[in-house]
Amino acid sequence: MSSTADSAQSARTEDNPIRVGVLGARGRMGAEVCRAVEAAGDMEVVAMVDTGDWMFDIADAGAEVVVDFTHPDVVMDNLRFCIDQDIRAVVGTSGFGDEKIATVRQWLEPKPELGVLLAPNFALGAVLSMRFAQLAAKYYDTVEIIELHHNRKADAPSGTAAHTARLVAQAREAAGMKAIPDATTHDPDGARGAMVDDIRVHSVRLGGLVAHQEVLFGGEGETLTIRHDSLDRKSFMPGVLHGVRAILDHSGLVVGLENLLDL
Amino acid sequence: MSSTADSAQSARTEDNPIRVGVLGARGRMGAEVCRAVEAAGDMEVVAMVDTGDWMFDIADAGAEVVVDFTHPDVVMDNLRFCIDQDIRAVVGTSGFGDEKIATVRQWLEPKPELGVLLAPNFALGAVLSMRFAQLAAKYYDTVEIIELHHNRKADAPSGTAAHTARLVAQAREAAGMKAIPDATTHDPDGARGAMVDDIRVHSVRLGGLVAHQEVLFGGEGETLTIRHDSLDRKSFMPGVLHGVRAILDHSGLVVGLENLLDL
Amino acid sequence: MSSTADSAQSARTEDNPIRVGVLGARGRMGAEVCRAVEAAGDMEVVAMVDTGDWMFDIADAGAEVVVDFTHPDVVMDNLRFCIDQDIRAVVGTSGFGDEKIATVRQWLEPKPELGVLLAPNFALGAVLSMRFAQLAAKYYDTVEIIELHHNRKADAPSGTAAHTARLVAQAREAAGMKAIPDATTHDPDGARGAMVDDIRVHSVRLGGLVAHQEVLFGGEGETLTIRHDSLDRKSFMPGVLHGVRAILDHSGLVVGLENLLDL
Amino acid sequence: MSSTADSAQSARTEDNPIRVGVLGARGRMGAEVCRAVEAAGDMEVVAMVDTGDWMFDIADAGAEVVVDFTHPDVVMDNLRFCIDQDIRAVVGTSGFGDEKIATVRQWLEPKPELGVLLAPNFALGAVLSMRFAQLAAKYYDTVEIIELHHNRKADAPSGTAAHTARLVAQAREAAGMKAIPDATTHDPDGARGAMVDDIRVHSVRLGGLVAHQEVLFGGEGETLTIRHDSLDRKSFMPGVLHGVRAILDHSGLVVGLENLLDL
Repeated sequence: MSSTADSAQSARTEDNPIRVGVLGARGRMGAEVCRAVEAAGDMEVVAMVDTGDWMFDIADAGAEVVVDFTHPDVVMDNLRFCIDQDIRAVVGTSGFGDEKIATVRQWLEPKPELGVLLAPNFALGAVLSMRFAQLAAKYYDTVEIIELHHNRKADAPSGTAAHTARLVAQAREAAGMKAIPDATTHDPDGARGAMVDDIRVHSVRLGGLVAHQEVLFGGEGETLTIRHDSLDRKSFMPGVLHGVRAILDHSGLVVGLENLLDL
Repeated sequence: MSSTADSAQSARTEDNPIRVGVLGARGRMGAEVCRAVEAAGDMEVVAMVDTGDWMFDIADAGAEVVVDFTHPDVVMDNLRFCIDQDIRAVVGTSGFGDEKIATVRQWLEPKPELGVLLAPNFALGAVLSMRFAQLAAKYYDTVEIIELHHNRKADAPSGTAAHTARLVAQAREAAGMKAIPDATTHDPDGARGAMVDDIRVHSVRLGGLVAHQEVLFGGEGETLTIRHDSLDRKSFMPGVLHGVRAILDHSGLVVGLENLLDL
Repeated sequence: MSSTADSAQSARTEDNPIRVGVLGARGRMGAEVCRAVEAAGDMEVVAMVDTGDWMFDIADAGAEVVVDFTHPDVVMDNLRFCIDQDIRAVVGTSGFGDEKIATVRQWLEPKPELGVLLAPNFALGAVLSMRFAQLAAKYYDTVEIIELHHNRKADAPSGTAAHTARLVAQAREAAGMKAIPDATTHDPDGARGAMVDDIRVHSVRLGGLVAHQEVLFGGEGETLTIRHDSLDRKSFMPGVLHGVRAILDHSGLVVGLENLLDL
Repeated sequence: MSSTADSAQSARTEDNPIRVGVLGARGRMGAEVCRAVEAAGDMEVVAMVDTGDWMFDIADAGAEVVVDFTHPDVVMDNLRFCIDQDIRAVVGTSGFGDEKIATVRQWLEPKPELGVLLAPNFALGAVLSMRFAQLAAKYYDTVEIIELHHNRKADAPSGTAAHTARLVAQAREAAGMKAIPDATTHDPDGARGAMVDDIRVHSVRLGGLVAHQEVLFGGEGETLTIRHDSLDRKSFMPGVLHGVRAILDHSGLVVGLENLLDL
């Protein structure tokens, strides 16, 4: 994301940087976050915390926003602490189901001015892909999703693909569309892939790949394809920085980076 | 485009169909339009006019909307006639520059209730591609366009690619973005393609292709690609039918089908 | 396929055209074959036969080669007739399993000078794709196949995809390669697709598509993709014409157009 | 490349490893080569040499093969030394034009048993792409090349794209094919890209990309696309290791890794 595109969303500068605390600072994602925050002109790292460190360092250092890429087992404690200390949070740790989300929402109730962002994917391209897929859904009778990842990935389909399928399905339902027409009558070995909310999802695993996704829409005589290729962990950083800047001006719980983008 | 998606935009049914006149009815596009209108449940062809036929047939038949896929040389006369007769128009004929557009706008002034749609491309995927490219533009420092057509095409780049480049350039400018960074210092044979409003556009011509376009956005560690494949003239029909339905509820001049889509 | 590429394989000219009989001449493929043969400079249609016509017309007309796009129920009778009459055959009719192939081979035994070509796919790009997939197979530890077709197709995966998987599997075995490494442990809905000879095959069905296939190879830090897009029935004609020319110089049974290409 | 695929080409094992010297060992590519050689079961690094080190270390350590990723300014001295010392060489350093190649060939004349490999690209996928493009060339009247790289690249088109264009052009000429038919009459801004040996080459530069290339062939109603994606420097290592193993059994100068692959 270009820095200029963000200028309207942040009045903070080098003289008055946003004070950021990083949780999970020695992990691969956390270390990348530290580098990215330091490289940005309008924010600075004031505390780096990982297993064995004191959470109070975050508060003592006067952090305004915490970025959390830790582990499902500890993230709820981290969030409780931040909310208690009036520190905003940008969370990329996975494993937030309906229950955990409801708990965070409850914790935030007594603090209406405080903002927390939970996001399953910070790559701007992934977020834009999902948004465009939602917008296109009602214009095409048929749609399928192909996600392609390195062959060390254990689960299929990917969380982002499943989430995209859900968003597309909701958009179809909202438009009063019928089930996707499919003439397949003979598929003995399951070549047609998984059904996620009535949308076909295909998972490819291949050496050399990183993280890629295609949403394919098909209509009369034409197709529309939205493809996202994530080739480096760095691709998540513009989204994280955008989240840090944007959460300063938002209150309450925000689920999904797309809600902080001007789309 | 699914018919259900349109239901909100048209209260017309088989018992009360939209009365459509087709100009250029014996041309390849016009003939396709006749077939598509007849196949739709909520409209019917009441007049088919081509070179040598009387324009008055259109009026006599009580057409509410005219669809015009004719020729740059005659389309202005056609439009003048329709506006005089209080008939709305959906126009796919090419060659509408600023001057012609201004003229049509002037003709419509005394008829504030009448609507006219001029569109360079009726394929929904092309329209959605352009819209998504506009939305994504401010999030990526780099962007290029590849358009691919059959090798009988005489001009490069395609009108749709040039239009997309312009829309992306405008979106970048509106976001205060700088010129696209490009380290190319040695390109003796022009491999880097054309500059259209400071956006690189590449034109591929190949036997077997029909009409295809990719808008490629590149950011830190990731790329986002929006691809449209138009494989059949039929791909324009859902957009034409959508235009016919939508123009009934719109007044004034509308340039571009995207302005009649809910995006 | 360029005509120049074939020049070496055929000394036949307009003055001395190859005499071709077309079986199934009123079907969609047969009609296309008739047009293609007539348009070629070095061959001519001497007999067109379909249901209800006399097979003897083929012999009476002095056909040297028969092209058969008919039906699995009648193709064996057609072949028996051609072989008895010393007419060569190029067959695109589907449904040739091991048993039928053995029967044809047996019929050809007493006629060592006669050639018959059976081919599941005449699109040169499909044939080249399969050949390149075979050649690349031993250089990559991981490989998967995605085939994409219109959503009126009843079976999955496509015959061409299954055949490609088999060829790749054979090439891997010949190179002494182990099973494809795959870390997937959690795939409750079958997103990983079908296993065909230990190769994953994914079938996408979408409106607007025609017939497309991608073979994806993944290695250390890189991927290689071989993609074929068949957009029109015409795409089979160069392969059919090539088969007609080449079978004149071949004797015995040839299964697969790839065996008549100089690869 | 799978290790099993190479087994036939090398009888060397852990007990009897190929002794490899690495020149430019502290550079990014050289360091990667050291890691890859050490990780392979059938070879070992016996000497690592960079600016300021003694070349004699290579000879003293008993290196059988040298791998050179250094600089155009020093590579010829390195090669002269290796040839004098009867050490085989695998060279990835760029800048080998006709003159330098002729010089190396001359140096090798008195040593008919010695082998040297010069290769512009060691990624197996790039080599396979070029080979497949050569093989497909004569079957398609139209062909174009798109290469896509990160936007820090200074030159366009890429060396690999230019080399591919040359190989395709030679294959077309050998098949007696005419110039590629192109109806373009209006291209004021150069959207049709560069002509390299009468083949159109398009260069895309985008943040987030690494090194990618597509060769697109177009015929009647179909297209064939050969795409290579190189996402990591590691992708060159299987080709380098293959070169090391294969050059042991080859004598004379070999230009291009494709000549050591069984295609």
